[in-house]
Amino acid sequence: MLASVEARPSFKRLPRAVREQQMLDAAVRVFSRRGFHEASMDEIAVEAGISKPMVYAYLGSKDDLFRACVNREGTRLLESIVAAVGDDLPADEQLWRGLRGFFGFVGAHREGWAVLYRQAKSRQPFADDLASLRARIVEVVAGMLRKAVTQEGKTDAKDQDLTASAYALVGAAESIADWLADHPEADPDHSAARLMNFTWLGARQLLQGELWQPSSA
Amino acid sequence: MLASVEARPSFKRLPRAVREQQMLDAAVRVFSRRGFHEASMDEIAVEAGISKPMVYAYLGSKDDLFRACVNREGTRLLESIVAAVGDDLPADEQLWRGLRGFFGFVGAHREGWAVLYRQAKSRQPFADDLASLRARIVEVVAGMLRKAVTQEGKTDAKDQDLTASAYALVGAAESIADWLADHPEADPDHSAARLMNFTWLGARQLLQGELWQPSSA
Repeated sequence: MLASVEARPSFKRLPRAVREQQMLDAAVRVFSRRGFHEASMDEIAVEAGISKPMVYAYLGSKDDLFRACVNREGTRLLESIVAAVGDDLPADEQLWRGLRGFFGFVGAHREGWAVLYRQAKSRQPFADDLASLRARIVEVVAGMLRKAVTQEGKTDAKDQDLTASAYALVGAAESIADWLADHPEADPDHSAARLMNFTWLGARQLLQGELWQPSSA
Repeated sequence: MLASVEARPSFKRLPRAVREQQMLDAAVRVFSRRGFHEASMDEIAVEAGISKPMVYAYLGSKDDLFRACVNREGTRLLESIVAAVGDDLPADEQLWRGLRGFFGFVGAHREGWAVLYRQAKSRQPFADDLASLRARIVEVVAGMLRKAVTQEGKTDAKDQDLTASAYALVGAAESIADWLADHPEADPDHSAARLMNFTWLGARQLLQGELWQPSSA
């Protein structure tokens, strides 16, 4: 009967890491639903199915908890992009998969994005966290660009140019994601395709009527 | 002797609009130097060469004043871009001039950008102002894209695609501008050229070693 024991675990015996993740899941839901100000630790504790002192003991104040949510969601987002980008694929396919991974994530977490991202951006202590998360994302993207460039045999590309392109790409993606979060009817893949065309082909080709098409489905 | 009278105007006889602009100039300098929190109305009054009650009478509280600064600087930025973009030039030249106008403005006001933009972004009442300013900029850029596309005879371009491209362009420019503000050694024209290459040629051409060159100096 091991399976059924595992299906209904005794709460006490859960490892700390698992329990923390459950609390963060609950906190993300409540922050998304209420916004930072209106979210209460009481509601988060109820949502997580544990006592409020336990939430404080594990994750600290509401500020700490919000911070932990932003960091976890940010890390997940970054992981989902890196996982989507295959290592040995052509550059356009990698870019396309990365963009689909990103917009797919945002599309699947529209409310969380709108609340976590916007609230983090507009509250001082969190804005710094978000800036450093963003810097990590820019670094990862610059590394991907460096790899794509090296694959093409262009070993003379300057790091600062690649970093600037990474900033441009991340800024463009962020800007469209913010739009996507406000448009529940919009298809995330459609946003990915738009940005793919914009960044891969560039305005010149777009003006000439060229369109980029994915080779895979 | 009319010229010398005009060179040393009696403060009392200045029209309200001119006086307001002087106060805003002073406020932008003080906010840039001190940041929002540390800036005092006393210092702003001294900097403007008028009494503190007069500053309050004209522009309201520190919050109101900061807001007025953000709106004025934002409007100036937008005007400087629109002025830079010639109406009857080819699309790439227009884009290049617009980008140079933008990065030139940011490069000339690095401190102001860092303080006004970042502080506005990370403080709730101002974040909304900034969002609506940003929406105006996106609209202006989308209008420029619509025009460029129409000039190329592509009348079938969808508004939503153009809006998405405008979001991408504005987000990319914002992201690089933020980097530029932190790098006093960086040349604004260099940032403009990087983004020009990125958005005009696209990643495919860049990987193939193509570079866009301005036809004008």
